[in-house]
Amino acid sequence: MNQTDVLCIGNAIVDVITHAEEDVLAAHGLAKGAMMLIDEERADYLFAAMGPTSVISGGSAGNTAAGLASLGGRAAFFGKVRDDDLGRLYRHDIRAAGVTFETAPATEGPATARSFIFVTPDGERTMNTYLGACQNLTEADIDAVAVEAAGITYLEGYLWDPPAAKLAFRKAAGLAHRSGGRVALTLSDSFCVDRYRDEFLGLVREGLVDILFANEHELKSLYQTADFDTALAALQSETTAAGFLAAVTRSEQDALAVTRERTVSAPVFPIDRLVDTTGAGDLFASGFLFGLSRERELADCLRLGALAAAEIIQHVGARPERRLSDLAAEVGLA
Amino acid sequence: MNQTDVLCIGNAIVDVITHAEEDVLAAHGLAKGAMMLIDEERADYLFAAMGPTSVISGGSAGNTAAGLASLGGRAAFFGKVRDDDLGRLYRHDIRAAGVTFETAPATEGPATARSFIFVTPDGERTMNTYLGACQNLTEADIDAVAVEAAGITYLEGYLWDPPAAKLAFRKAAGLAHRSGGRVALTLSDSFCVDRYRDEFLGLVREGLVDILFANEHELKSLYQTADFDTALAALQSETTAAGFLAAVTRSEQDALAVTRERTVSAPVFPIDRLVDTTGAGDLFASGFLFGLSRERELADCLRLGALAAAEIIQHVGARPERRLSDLAAEVGLA
Repeated sequence: MNQTDVLCIGNAIVDVITHAEEDVLAAHGLAKGAMMLIDEERADYLFAAMGPTSVISGGSAGNTAAGLASLGGRAAFFGKVRDDDLGRLYRHDIRAAGVTFETAPATEGPATARSFIFVTPDGERTMNTYLGACQNLTEADIDAVAVEAAGITYLEGYLWDPPAAKLAFRKAAGLAHRSGGRVALTLSDSFCVDRYRDEFLGLVREGLVDILFANEHELKSLYQTADFDTALAALQSETTAAGFLAAVTRSEQDALAVTRERTVSAPVFPIDRLVDTTGAGDLFASGFLFGLSRERELADCLRLGALAAAEIIQHVGARPERRLSDLAAEVGLA
Repeated sequence: MNQTDVLCIGNAIVDVITHAEEDVLAAHGLAKGAMMLIDEERADYLFAAMGPTSVISGGSAGNTAAGLASLGGRAAFFGKVRDDDLGRLYRHDIRAAGVTFETAPATEGPATARSFIFVTPDGERTMNTYLGACQNLTEADIDAVAVEAAGITYLEGYLWDPPAAKLAFRKAAGLAHRSGGRVALTLSDSFCVDRYRDEFLGLVREGLVDILFANEHELKSLYQTADFDTALAALQSETTAAGFLAAVTRSEQDALAVTRERTVSAPVFPIDRLVDTTGAGDLFASGFLFGLSRERELADCLRLGALAAAEIIQHVGARPERRLSDLAAEVGLA
């Protein structure tokens, strides 16, 4: 048995979240639903311009790790903060969530990363991320012992943004495979796919990725089509390797698990009120990976993902407010 | 017409909020539902011991000011932060809420105040407050022009905790009365009443307070009785001055407005799910004071208070997530 179910590697980011009307997005040139990278000057500008905030630890892979732990999984995280107040907050929060986190904080250089998130009344989130200390995640931060102890090593596509992290990513994937582990990748964001399409496709085709996560928009961006079925067919034709697996989410439509042999679907869970979609994909990955680590049926993996996503979108922030293992027990998925 | 509807004066505190099971309170010696004052060492201990957090600006009077602005009122706030990251967050948040906030930050001395808040599954909050920079609010921070411009000056009982703030409180009350304004006081917390009972009763009896806010527990503590009706009768006998007004909340039971002539009651608003009671009393005060400033009937003032409280207890944190003026319009209270 692996010591860790899933090791997550990503940008360690503190979310600074506000509610905003649609016209605020237009006024500041924000592309609704996307993650845009910003520099320090733009960060200062947006912070001054935004409404009252909630500050909650975030970052895609970090959210996934926190969700895994909340489900009862053994999760670890690699990510780079600075040794500043927000960095200490980040470290506190991810450890308090039950995630093993030992990446040394940067003692110099840019501050801990922040994402300025505007949540519109429809619950959609628009993210503006200052990467800061994430730029300093390097190969040296990839602790081989920790990677080798993990059944699955999960990487976020956003890691392609800070230049050095890409090498860390490849090192981790190589170590995982050599120790018999599986490598998972989330495409993160359709604009991110746009920036690194060929590289992401290359990772899949060279067999560096065993489990691929994408939402509908990212999948369409990957295959440069406006038609979901076309994109899905392209994905299905990609799954030539035995054991390759893709999980595709489609907002409130059924989620899909795609293998060489078959495509399985499962419905989402009904919710009372959509508050903030931040972390929906990250928490879907938590549930799906937790299911995989417990060798559950693919339909159950999808349902666990949908359950975790349903919890996260009913409140502000991308870290669970309720214990996901309790929710899973309530619906008979524990 | 006054330039400001309500000027709120209180401790400027950033809330660090976590969800916790009941046994966590016992394990750390926390008195459920209360606000306990802590020193820096205890703050470090509790932060290390607590679960994942949401960091959201708070402080009783600051919350009331934010709620007033969300209802469309003209609100101002006096409170002391340090010129550190949390202090900048606090200033940003209260200004972004639409509140006028000009108190100069402390450039030395203790850090911006933090309250470590444990929210149990029943929604009750237990607060542990490190007062930090609030200790440095003094008479010099009471800007006479701002006080004279306000129709109501609202003060929190918690101001009795930092020693110098008490003098600031008296200065503000005196200035308010000299310019024809009214002075409101919230009793804040039953333990706070326990600490300063005679002084609070003295403030009422010497006519320094025109509008008194209390919840059931605070009122019982004020009159040292376990029986609500006894406490209410004592309060009613207190209202000898024409124009003296008390507002009493009782959790999910009807709220009461008490004057020399009569006692008016109004029901609370139904909610979907109780998440976090932090700020319930503060937001009740927002609605009630907003109604008073608009010269609404007392029953409407109570309903506005209940409406604002209902919004705040359905999510984490004590600052409104929805625009309260919209909610008021929806229920015909605008």
